[in-house]
Amino acid sequence: MLQENERIDDLEFENLKIIQNKNWFCFGIDSVLLSDFAKTIKKNATVLDLGTGTGIISILLSKKIACKKIYGIEVQKDVADMANRSVELNQLQEKIEILPMNVHNLLEKFSKNSIDAIVTNPPYKKQHTGEKNENLVKYIARHETEVDLEEWISISSSVLKSTGELYMVHRPERLVDILTLLRKYRLEPKILRFVYANIEKEPKLVLIKGVKNAKPFMKVEKPLFVYNNSGNYTDEILKIYNKK
Amino acid sequence: MLQENERIDDLEFENLKIIQNKNWFCFGIDSVLLSDFAKTIKKNATVLDLGTGTGIISILLSKKIACKKIYGIEVQKDVADMANRSVELNQLQEKIEILPMNVHNLLEKFSKNSIDAIVTNPPYKKQHTGEKNENLVKYIARHETEVDLEEWISISSSVLKSTGELYMVHRPERLVDILTLLRKYRLEPKILRFVYANIEKEPKLVLIKGVKNAKPFMKVEKPLFVYNNSGNYTDEILKIYNKK
Repeated sequence: MLQENERIDDLEFENLKIIQNKNWFCFGIDSVLLSDFAKTIKKNATVLDLGTGTGIISILLSKKIACKKIYGIEVQKDVADMANRSVELNQLQEKIEILPMNVHNLLEKFSKNSIDAIVTNPPYKKQHTGEKNENLVKYIARHETEVDLEEWISISSSVLKSTGELYMVHRPERLVDILTLLRKYRLEPKILRFVYANIEKEPKLVLIKGVKNAKPFMKVEKPLFVYNNSGNYTDEILKIYNKK
Repeated sequence: MLQENERIDDLEFENLKIIQNKNWFCFGIDSVLLSDFAKTIKKNATVLDLGTGTGIISILLSKKIACKKIYGIEVQKDVADMANRSVELNQLQEKIEILPMNVHNLLEKFSKNSIDAIVTNPPYKKQHTGEKNENLVKYIARHETEVDLEEWISISSSVLKSTGELYMVHRPERLVDILTLLRKYRLEPKILRFVYANIEKEPKLVLIKGVKNAKPFMKVEKPLFVYNNSGNYTDEILKIYNKK
């Protein structure tokens, strides 16, 4: 089950476990927050998780919503293989299928207007902006090497049904790009939520929900703080991590 | 100096006073926050205050920055006349000129690429969305009756110099419109700051700085809270209101 440099981590949620490779990348709070943000996905939905990486979002989401199926799309074959072993480890093969493929080729596998919801933690950085000595697996996970944000969003819009939902986590500094592209591809931004380390800090993450063909009117939700004034996790974060 | 239904209010800042008409509208915290947000305007700048209303933003700003001149543009003649009397009351005629004119006609008075900075608290609501029995002066101040947001932004871009700055306060639900229009008219959004009543609430206002012909990269600043956990003004608000 485990390969070199891999370990099994307990997600402390519904007995879920995940395999991670210490030389690649480990899932972060962004994925945990996104899977919680996406829990409004409707019953029996067919869901795509674009850029699933370790499979963390698909695995958490499978226990948070009553969907039909989640397809986890991952361009890096070795990473997809590891995610697939995590799915098997949790006996979630009925709910989750990991597909080693490029988002660019999504329409070869899925029909237009066929998907109910997409969750995605895309690469945050533009191509050619990384540290040069980053390893390649990390680099591809973090940079728009294969598919840039515009194509990521345009393909998402193509496969989503009308009124289908896109849930995304990204960096605030890309917000103008994200909102203009979502509107351009008729995924009207409806909910925005910023994630702050604490009340004194700039937000490090933003959660965005877009709805295909919806009317313009976006709600900016109350801030999500990770730490309170005492430097401990806030109640909301403890609840999301299932510790309260 | 005073006309029917008018009163003089003390701004409790640099001995400034303002004339307001209780049957029209009174300035709000949005104008106070915008004038503070815009205090990074450069020395000797020529500034336009589009939709100046009571003149509050021009009057506060004249004491916060070392600009050359502020032109307060107000489409409603009676409101502009009242603002003009406030300018005289504060003996600010050298710094501030109130112009009773429509933003639509701005290029008849100002040349393209001639202005260093614009501050604006535009009407928040789209045309035909108001309560029907609102009085007309209020209605025009709050709705896009004469000029819609797109024209407001496109004309702002036309009169601004390259690297000229636009400072705007608006409602968060219009954020997608605002950011897409700013980018469309080459006023790249550079700073965004949300204003929350307190840490439990959705933001009611958003402050936006756009810079003409700038490169994309937007900073979302730390949240601005009006009240702390005890229900009192936060230190930052007290400082902006000059009470601390």
